[in-house]
Amino acid sequence: MIKSDLSSFNNDWYRPGSSVKRLLWYFFNVLFLLNPLNPFVGLKIFVLKMFGAKIGEGVIIKPKVSVKYPWKLEIGANTWIGENVWIDNLDVVKIGSNCCLSQGALLLSGNHNYKKKSFDLLVRPITLEDGAWVGARAIVVQGVVMKSHSILTVNSVATANLEPYGIYQGNPAVKIRERIISES
Amino acid sequence: MIKSDLSSFNNDWYRPGSSVKRLLWYFFNVLFLLNPLNPFVGLKIFVLKMFGAKIGEGVIIKPKVSVKYPWKLEIGANTWIGENVWIDNLDVVKIGSNCCLSQGALLLSGNHNYKKKSFDLLVRPITLEDGAWVGARAIVVQGVVMKSHSILTVNSVATANLEPYGIYQGNPAVKIRERIISES
Amino acid sequence: MIKSDLSSFNNDWYRPGSSVKRLLWYFFNVLFLLNPLNPFVGLKIFVLKMFGAKIGEGVIIKPKVSVKYPWKLEIGANTWIGENVWIDNLDVVKIGSNCCLSQGALLLSGNHNYKKKSFDLLVRPITLEDGAWVGARAIVVQGVVMKSHSILTVNSVATANLEPYGIYQGNPAVKIRERIISES
Repeated sequence: MIKSDLSSFNNDWYRPGSSVKRLLWYFFNVLFLLNPLNPFVGLKIFVLKMFGAKIGEGVIIKPKVSVKYPWKLEIGANTWIGENVWIDNLDVVKIGSNCCLSQGALLLSGNHNYKKKSFDLLVRPITLEDGAWVGARAIVVQGVVMKSHSILTVNSVATANLEPYGIYQGNPAVKIRERIISES
Repeated sequence: MIKSDLSSFNNDWYRPGSSVKRLLWYFFNVLFLLNPLNPFVGLKIFVLKMFGAKIGEGVIIKPKVSVKYPWKLEIGANTWIGENVWIDNLDVVKIGSNCCLSQGALLLSGNHNYKKKSFDLLVRPITLEDGAWVGARAIVVQGVVMKSHSILTVNSVATANLEPYGIYQGNPAVKIRERIISES
Repeated sequence: MIKSDLSSFNNDWYRPGSSVKRLLWYFFNVLFLLNPLNPFVGLKIFVLKMFGAKIGEGVIIKPKVSVKYPWKLEIGANTWIGENVWIDNLDVVKIGSNCCLSQGALLLSGNHNYKKKSFDLLVRPITLEDGAWVGARAIVVQGVVMKSHSILTVNSVATANLEPYGIYQGNPAVKIRERIISES
């Protein structure tokens, strides 16, 4: 059997932004987003935009959120980012309007090629279409599209695309119900 | 299909306590409970009680615990609250005596009505009866009663009541065994 | 039915190190490992070794890692410890070479005997053989051996040994595939 050798890992091809920008953002993330002593939403959105994030009107960002690279992040209007949400966007993460990421949700756009001894880095975008809801501590892995108004329930793991208005549960998440929305 | 519209969200009916008290507690929680530089159990219990929590004798609270609203929290005697436990008690959380919440456990008393375009807030109490054990990183959602001495295993999600002395696993958690306790 | 009584809990037999050492390490862990303002890998490895950890060449330790007792920790060469990884090593944790613990992974070497009214502490070692990969937010419980190059997928829970080159998913994790590694 061939063994993995992480000393042969090489991600030189991956250029997520200048090292100065990434270092600066690392500390801005720690001080303004992760830091629970800053509960001020406006200030968080300001620093995210300063680093290139596109963020719509009416977005709410709760305490202790972490974003890997703001310049790879788009968030539509009236979307909520809950407490302890972790947007680990090595690749582009697009979040639509009227979405909700509940507390502790994790978007995981990086992975490793476990079939290579060099354990190569793999990055793929994640898309949450309008009205999608990622439940508390649920996890969306790389390449997944949560279609319009789909729901991933508490602690579930989305490993493939979720159909529009579908409700998914489990690890891996499977469809359990349709979401039907009434006017009022 | 009807779309959700989070700008129409309205939780004016929800009155969890005066805004001054909530703001004050937010920072007390950060400084005395979440802050790992305060490992002093007595001090944590003191500030929780100051804000209205009812806490029995012999309770242990480990580092980095978070409590949403102490005035909606009751904990019986000799109960242990483990490291990184998150009591997100938008509604009343009653924890009995001799209970254990292991590290990273999450009690989730809030939810949203995903069938309404306004994504209304839903809150319901959570009850842990005497001797209940919430395993590491396990999650109890709103409305659930963990009956006497029931167990929710590591990383499982309780979405419905757990029977007395039942052991539950998975997402959603299902009963896998009975708990039989011997005298010594 | 017999009830549990946590006031009768007694772990006097458990001697994980002098109380001075444990207290000191508690604060070193908070200041040098958990603290996101210290992203310096060399400094983390230095303090871990100072407290008795055995750590090979080329090891990477990301921010916000937590280690319970460094003197009960061994890590082989070229192994990666991801962001927010929690090594709760009440008993010895041996991690081989070329392993990866992805972000939020949890090694849980402590447990409680839920069949005793005194809820006795149970500790057992955990072993990760060379090339093993613990996925993001996956959990390995006490006594488990992850055999050579086994994989535990995102958010899964390993409750029993994992076979060499086996890929496991779910809670409890079950084998879903073989891992076949190619040279390049």
